[in-house]
Amino acid sequence: MSIRIAIVGYGNLGRGVESAIRQNPDMELCAVFSRRDPAAVALKTPGVPVVSTKELPDWKEKIDVLILCGGSATDLPVQTPLYAGDFNIVNSFDTHAKIPEHFASVDKAAKEGGRVAVISAGWDPGLFSLIRMISSACLPEGKNYTFWGRGVSQGHSDAIRRIKGVLDARQYTVPVEAAVEKVRNGEQPDFRARDMHTRECYVVAEEGADLARIEKEIREMPNYFADYNTSVHFISMEELKERHAGLPHGGFVIRSGKTGLAEENNELIEFRLQLDSNPEFTSSVLIACARAAARMAKEGQTGAKTLFDIPPAYLSPLSGEELRAHLL
Amino acid sequence: MSIRIAIVGYGNLGRGVESAIRQNPDMELCAVFSRRDPAAVALKTPGVPVVSTKELPDWKEKIDVLILCGGSATDLPVQTPLYAGDFNIVNSFDTHAKIPEHFASVDKAAKEGGRVAVISAGWDPGLFSLIRMISSACLPEGKNYTFWGRGVSQGHSDAIRRIKGVLDARQYTVPVEAAVEKVRNGEQPDFRARDMHTRECYVVAEEGADLARIEKEIREMPNYFADYNTSVHFISMEELKERHAGLPHGGFVIRSGKTGLAEENNELIEFRLQLDSNPEFTSSVLIACARAAARMAKEGQTGAKTLFDIPPAYLSPLSGEELRAHLL
Repeated sequence: MSIRIAIVGYGNLGRGVESAIRQNPDMELCAVFSRRDPAAVALKTPGVPVVSTKELPDWKEKIDVLILCGGSATDLPVQTPLYAGDFNIVNSFDTHAKIPEHFASVDKAAKEGGRVAVISAGWDPGLFSLIRMISSACLPEGKNYTFWGRGVSQGHSDAIRRIKGVLDARQYTVPVEAAVEKVRNGEQPDFRARDMHTRECYVVAEEGADLARIEKEIREMPNYFADYNTSVHFISMEELKERHAGLPHGGFVIRSGKTGLAEENNELIEFRLQLDSNPEFTSSVLIACARAAARMAKEGQTGAKTLFDIPPAYLSPLSGEELRAHLL
Repeated sequence: MSIRIAIVGYGNLGRGVESAIRQNPDMELCAVFSRRDPAAVALKTPGVPVVSTKELPDWKEKIDVLILCGGSATDLPVQTPLYAGDFNIVNSFDTHAKIPEHFASVDKAAKEGGRVAVISAGWDPGLFSLIRMISSACLPEGKNYTFWGRGVSQGHSDAIRRIKGVLDARQYTVPVEAAVEKVRNGEQPDFRARDMHTRECYVVAEEGADLARIEKEIREMPNYFADYNTSVHFISMEELKERHAGLPHGGFVIRSGKTGLAEENNELIEFRLQLDSNPEFTSSVLIACARAAARMAKEGQTGAKTLFDIPPAYLSPLSGEELRAHLL
């Protein structure tokens, strides 16, 4: 019997989950839940109902795993503990500083309801976290470096869009090549934020807007841009749509460590992602975690989990025998 | 209380485990077992006894995890099922084709004795396997590529040493850069063996040996060299010792996959290792797996396990809270 998946929230991520399900024959999409008027939501998959989130309680027995595709700022902190008592859940909660608090509230709800909730799945947090963790365990004397990009940061793009006079914007995070090379050479430098990444902004301004003021507001924005070398390029709406329509992303995690009695040997672990579509790849990871959630729930496990807690084989549709024969 | 580790076999790998233990404060080395005369084995760690393997049965209650550091050809297939009934075990069994059979025999012994045995740990099999498995689960439509090197293959070096007239040899496995580039560009080519790797041999011959014959025997050796573009360089013993003394290795696993409703987006996952010391890095992975074995045994789990079965957090000395706060 296939794993019955439902999606909550039909944005970029929800659409990514919808398309990822088609690549996984052991899964079926049984419903999409939305806060919008269901009649106004057109799915790409024929025959799947769009349902108001208000009706979720009626679906308790019809869904194996609910994939929450809302945002980390306001949706997931509310939805996840709310639904984790009634459903097995996967989310991509990515506000790193608030993960411990989120884990605690979801863990409580999931344990009370006897369900499994996999939080902070995706690639960062997610696969990047897994690599940071495993490589730290395998090379205890060393340092981790995480570089993001080249790719579109949706949070930074949104921040620019909120500036007066801006119609639209796209922000690319770009790793500083010289910093990457230092780390790959086995040095273990200490970096400031601006040493590791630059920020490139492509901005469409309203006609007659004060471009100098917009550029200044971007460059001086605390947390987002003030600590980085930032370039601002004003372009037309046509150019934005033509040349910056995609959501590519990626980056790499490097652990640089030392082994040997005198720590005389350098050992380098590098994990790199190069993604044409950030939301589609993230969705594909969520789907693999949904499989693991279903399996852990079947075994009687309960509570909040992260990729650190999941035996990797649980992510795969293949049996232990198949995995050992073909991938070990 | 620290995890009590014992080493069986004091070659390159055993010495690597000895030095890795010093980087892991939650572990202690309690004995090294050897088939050689214990009096002839000088450890780098003062106060640790060297004991004949014959005495292993007396140590049943004194060891938490036994790390088997012998070879995959003859040592591990015998030792692992032999000891897995009495001890929790970690090995680096790396004969890929025989893993299913090895798993079955070790699993039986470990289950009968109520012990945990982690087999095929290291980097390939090991971390590379883990990446192949996880990335296949996250990108079901795609292809895996594994490139090894540039690095010393000990199996291939040994094969050259067995040729008449050869005093010593070092074989480097080298990835073909053009093949790597194709894969990184998102193409999914089918390769023959010679398209992916070349083999460089540095050979010290006996004085007066027939160099042309030696070179021909290397180039035509089935499985090892016949399917590759192989270069043979005759050098002096001094040069070998000066310039080829280390055991560097590494390589990379790439999964090239597609996402999207029309599979229109390329997604690339790459995991790369660059190791000054192959045996020391392998040992460091074995140590992390020993920690996991001790923990699984404490929970009452039994039988053979691979990295596919281990919740990643079990590899780390940090608590779940610490891991989530600092590495997620």
